[in-house]
Amino acid sequence: MKNIKRGQALWRRAKKIIPGGSQLLSKRSELFLPEQWPSYFKKAKGVFVWDLDGNKYIDTCASIGASILSYADADVNRAVKRAIDQGNVSTLNAPEEVELAELLCRLHPWAGMVRYARGGGEAMTVAVRIARAYTGKDKIAFCGYHGWHDWYLAANLANDKNLDGHLLPGLMPKGTPRCLAGTAMPFNYNKIEQLEKIVAGNKDIGVIAMEPVRDHEPKDNFLENVRHIADRVGAVLIFDEVTIGWRLMVGGAHLRYGVNPDIAVFAKGMSNGFPMAAIVGRSEVMQAAQDSFISSSSWTDRIGAVAALATIKKMISKKVPRHLEKIGLIIRAGLKELARELGIKLAITGFPQLICLSFEYGPKSQAVHTLFIQEMLKRGFIASSNIDVSYSLKAEHAKKYLGAAEQVFGIIKQAVHDNKVNQLLAGPVAHSKFLRLT
Amino acid sequence: MKNIKRGQALWRRAKKIIPGGSQLLSKRSELFLPEQWPSYFKKAKGVFVWDLDGNKYIDTCASIGASILSYADADVNRAVKRAIDQGNVSTLNAPEEVELAELLCRLHPWAGMVRYARGGGEAMTVAVRIARAYTGKDKIAFCGYHGWHDWYLAANLANDKNLDGHLLPGLMPKGTPRCLAGTAMPFNYNKIEQLEKIVAGNKDIGVIAMEPVRDHEPKDNFLENVRHIADRVGAVLIFDEVTIGWRLMVGGAHLRYGVNPDIAVFAKGMSNGFPMAAIVGRSEVMQAAQDSFISSSSWTDRIGAVAALATIKKMISKKVPRHLEKIGLIIRAGLKELARELGIKLAITGFPQLICLSFEYGPKSQAVHTLFIQEMLKRGFIASSNIDVSYSLKAEHAKKYLGAAEQVFGIIKQAVHDNKVNQLLAGPVAHSKFLRLT
Repeated sequence: MKNIKRGQALWRRAKKIIPGGSQLLSKRSELFLPEQWPSYFKKAKGVFVWDLDGNKYIDTCASIGASILSYADADVNRAVKRAIDQGNVSTLNAPEEVELAELLCRLHPWAGMVRYARGGGEAMTVAVRIARAYTGKDKIAFCGYHGWHDWYLAANLANDKNLDGHLLPGLMPKGTPRCLAGTAMPFNYNKIEQLEKIVAGNKDIGVIAMEPVRDHEPKDNFLENVRHIADRVGAVLIFDEVTIGWRLMVGGAHLRYGVNPDIAVFAKGMSNGFPMAAIVGRSEVMQAAQDSFISSSSWTDRIGAVAALATIKKMISKKVPRHLEKIGLIIRAGLKELARELGIKLAITGFPQLICLSFEYGPKSQAVHTLFIQEMLKRGFIASSNIDVSYSLKAEHAKKYLGAAEQVFGIIKQAVHDNKVNQLLAGPVAHSKFLRLT
Repeated sequence: MKNIKRGQALWRRAKKIIPGGSQLLSKRSELFLPEQWPSYFKKAKGVFVWDLDGNKYIDTCASIGASILSYADADVNRAVKRAIDQGNVSTLNAPEEVELAELLCRLHPWAGMVRYARGGGEAMTVAVRIARAYTGKDKIAFCGYHGWHDWYLAANLANDKNLDGHLLPGLMPKGTPRCLAGTAMPFNYNKIEQLEKIVAGNKDIGVIAMEPVRDHEPKDNFLENVRHIADRVGAVLIFDEVTIGWRLMVGGAHLRYGVNPDIAVFAKGMSNGFPMAAIVGRSEVMQAAQDSFISSSSWTDRIGAVAALATIKKMISKKVPRHLEKIGLIIRAGLKELARELGIKLAITGFPQLICLSFEYGPKSQAVHTLFIQEMLKRGFIASSNIDVSYSLKAEHAKKYLGAAEQVFGIIKQAVHDNKVNQLLAGPVAHSKFLRLT
């Protein structure tokens, strides 16, 4: 096992002073490898990460999808550092905000106006505010994962299983005002009848919010039908492109399917890990922002717009989504082949750009998953059940990853056969839920 | 008049593509000098700002208070650029988060845990979520300005005048779910009887949120009495230090008054204009964050913590609050003297670090205010009704500012005497409200 003493020591300090340890649930060490995870990085460049103990890894999670161009991209960093030298704020505004808005509207010809925020969940909340202001109707039908805000967690006030089919099961709505119960109703992807039922039972649906696509392709004109329902009931259709945006093509994934929302929301990948988010919408709808109050000092910082401009321009010029697909196809095909050869029960879903792995060993699944992470770490990989392909992940890294996976699958096969999976784990099984950390 | 063609041309483009033009209401050109404001900056360094037409100004508004060390501070920028070179994100966490949390707890010995966000209003919303999760009670009594989120704007659902005494009158709550009406009730600063009335009439007040101080010193043990009421009714007391924090002393202004909240919220000045916010609280209360879901990718970015560490360390080593007070006292005394000498009806309120000017000419007040901004701009100052003293604003700049103010007060005096204030304006009177921009 690699020496990860410093990282673990700091993580233990962190849990004493930061509730939950990390600001992003998906970066909690216990979700990867409890008591054995490097936890912190000293340096990150390209697909490589160095931990506090000097170990070097290939990171196949791309900061949970936030870094499409890979870490510390030279072009983006150059632009950002220039902006910092010239001052990242003043009482006057940053001109790059306008340039970025114009670029986003060129990429999304159905849209006419743009607002900014600095995070995905926050930007979705801005979009929901605008949509409610525009329609005058408060209720929301939604599909997929949309962050930590009240409007979304409200779904679990009515039924604590409501969010279970939407990426993160078991989200606790504690602290969300109880009067919001019944304001947010979930429907599942490709289940248009569920949305029909919601709008039939609720006359005041003002917002339909969804990820246009995530793991599965739309079937039976699902997106077109959602669009028709939104038009029919007078709801604003919001596409949450925070995760899938920019990966399938430059701009929103919805462009691929030819179905336009009223508002599309971008964050994460659009600025290669620098905090930034954009709410892009039809002018008539977006102008409702002026009937409400939506304003923050931190949204005027220059870095966000500069990083997004540099990132988007590079994604265009380097045809980045095509690269992500190419490498993702290599990894996906390689893993399928290895699993077949070695008899590993591995379900592989998602797009090549955003692969999702699931070991299917019944009650042993989570232990096998943990063993996979542990053994990949030993072999120099920050790996998990999601593979977020980034631009510096080249065929050579994919080959190395598959080489390591072959060894690890061999270990898993033997361990399962010998019923010794837990014995091979150096620490506890990875958490699959929101356990309270102490 | 200075040539501000490029800035105005870009602002007109912005309003076509960004509803309201700016991401921060307080940076809208129409609130300063409609049709005449430079609007955008090319460069900002120290107290100086260069607009798109190459004009150079002394900026006395410090990015609406976000830049306490002044723009592009060499020490903060060096630390941030190093962090960018080493990668600002990865799948692992940034170790500086822990160092910053420990520093914040040292500065606030009553506190034991810290969470982060990237904006002030957002961080207040995190604090409110934690407080509601901890107490299990949804209702909020509040005083002061706290941003754009639902929990706060809900106050104006019950009565659209509820927020009028709290910095920004006329905030429109459109798009805030109507079921939140009655969940947020305002009380005025130093009016303890108003808070007593709220808690007497509502058994389920779980949160008392307030700016510990803003324009006026607390009277008659106001803060102690609020603290007692919070304890008596079992409410979490949140101090919003987004505006006043770090200016009166390093850390929260509440430290000066010896009254501890359960949670204190910081943003803006804590990181010298780089997006960052901290929720600092008692461990028992903060752990309630683990019973809710509060998580965002953008909160894991390394820049925020690095910028805050560098900013706070410099504020400590350079005794920055003392400098702000010294310069603020020079400006405040100078303006008072000038107003007296020239017979200008000028009310000056607030702390020396954060001076508030108000021309008192009845229905002509706003026109006089506009004339002041216009004439100060001609003389090379980005000036408004708020003077936010920053660290690079030295005695020599204060002297220049007072020299310019003397000339401008002379112009105002004559214009008022001749009843020609509006005639002297090159453009419309500044907006004082949230007018829809087209």
